[in-house]
Amino acid sequence: MKRYLVLAEGYSDDPHYGKTARGVMRYGADPVVAVVDSERPGEDLDGVPVVATVEDALIHEPTTALVGVATAGGRLPGKWRAILESALAAGLDLESGMHQFLGDDPGLAALAEQHGAEIRDLRRAPSGLSVPTGENLKHDAIVILTVGSDCAIGKMSVSLELDRGARERGLESVFVPTGQTGIAIAGWGIAVDAVVADFIAGAAERLVVEGAGRGDLLWVEGQGSLIHPDYSGVTLGLYHGSAPHFLVLCHQVGDEHIQDLPAHPIPSLPELVELHERIALPARPAKVIGLALNTRRLDDDGARAAIEAVERETGLPADDPVRFGPGRLLDAILARVSPV
Amino acid sequence: MKRYLVLAEGYSDDPHYGKTARGVMRYGADPVVAVVDSERPGEDLDGVPVVATVEDALIHEPTTALVGVATAGGRLPGKWRAILESALAAGLDLESGMHQFLGDDPGLAALAEQHGAEIRDLRRAPSGLSVPTGENLKHDAIVILTVGSDCAIGKMSVSLELDRGARERGLESVFVPTGQTGIAIAGWGIAVDAVVADFIAGAAERLVVEGAGRGDLLWVEGQGSLIHPDYSGVTLGLYHGSAPHFLVLCHQVGDEHIQDLPAHPIPSLPELVELHERIALPARPAKVIGLALNTRRLDDDGARAAIEAVERETGLPADDPVRFGPGRLLDAILARVSPV
Repeated sequence: MKRYLVLAEGYSDDPHYGKTARGVMRYGADPVVAVVDSERPGEDLDGVPVVATVEDALIHEPTTALVGVATAGGRLPGKWRAILESALAAGLDLESGMHQFLGDDPGLAALAEQHGAEIRDLRRAPSGLSVPTGENLKHDAIVILTVGSDCAIGKMSVSLELDRGARERGLESVFVPTGQTGIAIAGWGIAVDAVVADFIAGAAERLVVEGAGRGDLLWVEGQGSLIHPDYSGVTLGLYHGSAPHFLVLCHQVGDEHIQDLPAHPIPSLPELVELHERIALPARPAKVIGLALNTRRLDDDGARAAIEAVERETGLPADDPVRFGPGRLLDAILARVSPV
Repeated sequence: MKRYLVLAEGYSDDPHYGKTARGVMRYGADPVVAVVDSERPGEDLDGVPVVATVEDALIHEPTTALVGVATAGGRLPGKWRAILESALAAGLDLESGMHQFLGDDPGLAALAEQHGAEIRDLRRAPSGLSVPTGENLKHDAIVILTVGSDCAIGKMSVSLELDRGARERGLESVFVPTGQTGIAIAGWGIAVDAVVADFIAGAAERLVVEGAGRGDLLWVEGQGSLIHPDYSGVTLGLYHGSAPHFLVLCHQVGDEHIQDLPAHPIPSLPELVELHERIALPARPAKVIGLALNTRRLDDDGARAAIEAVERETGLPADDPVRFGPGRLLDAILARVSPV
């Protein structure tokens, strides 16, 4: 039985960088027993105690330390090294979603060996990847990909909520993980942003083909954004390689430009709908089937008003499935997707 | 002084897979003294003798064997191993553009060491890559990227021809290599299809920033196609990361679908122009400035008629700069770009 200690030093309070921590705590199959952040000891994160050090966490009997930050570029902040070393020295396994592979670090590898711990780099690409074979157009599952106006606005959570809702209705529904947090949550998947660039679409195809072996309604975790100047390549490769039938467009209400990049404005939602449908492959003309809004800046009344305004503006069903549950959006989606 | 022996076993006659061989022969600074292809000994490739084996090539005094094929997925056909071994055993350096790094092969590495030869993997990513910093929007150079309706239709050759023409006019013009053949030709660059997927745009930014240090008119070698189901992610990452001011849209006249993939039709050229301009970042709204047509299937009259038809259809200047020289297209481009 895996019991996670989430390492979130300096980031446990940050909605962007703390997304791995929060994602695993909210959606993971394995329990999170404590969070390490020396800046917030004694507080809690969604009910899980925050402690100052790995040593302080050991009374909660963790088995596995998870590097719970996702930094731009995927590199590990320098002061983290001591934290990782203390986790390994305590005999904890280490799971990391950094681009910088911890298992390739001779010092950490030796420490792991010494203490009988295992290092698992969640972003390490599997062997044998290549370009797509065309199988992505041949399986029988319905594929629904989340796309978005920006990174880190909740695409993964939307896919997870819709999958959960569909499973609760008895459907053979599958969440298809494409990033390090999704992999930590679901226990399988490929971090498509970490494969050799030529093989993004091939990795995405492999994921949907595997997903189609697990169920017949696939919710593919989206990555990045077509309009994000850093990550658009991964976004389009994932889109074309996963060959979705439908898209759920995610947007954080109030965002007018890409986070931290005011030179990169976000177009209107109708424009984003059109852009995403325009760039679909003719062999699989995907349609936006609904909008998932992140309304965290608004109160409940404000959120409901924003959702209604977006429905009027786009003519498409919209909701905040994380805040209000997936039911309403799922009704609208299944009305078009069924019979699966 | 480098003297290339191009290894093109089984592929020297193939316009798609032989593109590395032909590119280096036509545009490289270093001479190609022979081509190895046991299926065509005694013939010649653009005036360079084709021989059956590496041993037969040694009378031409090569210094460096170049793996002159670019296979889908970038892996090396099995029978090639013996050819590589004989090149290293003859003391030749080995340059390769495969995704599969030859320098990581213990047997080949040992053979190279034994015979004083060096293995250079042209696609190996430099260290320290990350996401873009924004420098791609700040330098003073004009950036012109080739994009296309498909792979392997001549985007690199078009960039090379336009660069050559501009340099002949005395402009501070630079070809910016983004793939293994361009790197072999120009002696610098990054194979953007071989970097970690998250860093495509960052690698592209690094290339244009380096290019802006070398000159003020940059011709960035395009990769893949926005509508290619395998490579579109690399294409969009390169596009957004290189942040071009202008695009030259390349198309092979007569192609109606992606090569070998009849399920993937090529839209009309006006639609492709609109799609490429539509997906530009608002911070750098790139315009298609002209069309470069590959007219190899037509005779001269047919080619000229096709070019005129495309000019009428799109309202943009068009030519086949490889067949007819870069002058006419360059005139049209510089009329809009100047003063640089």
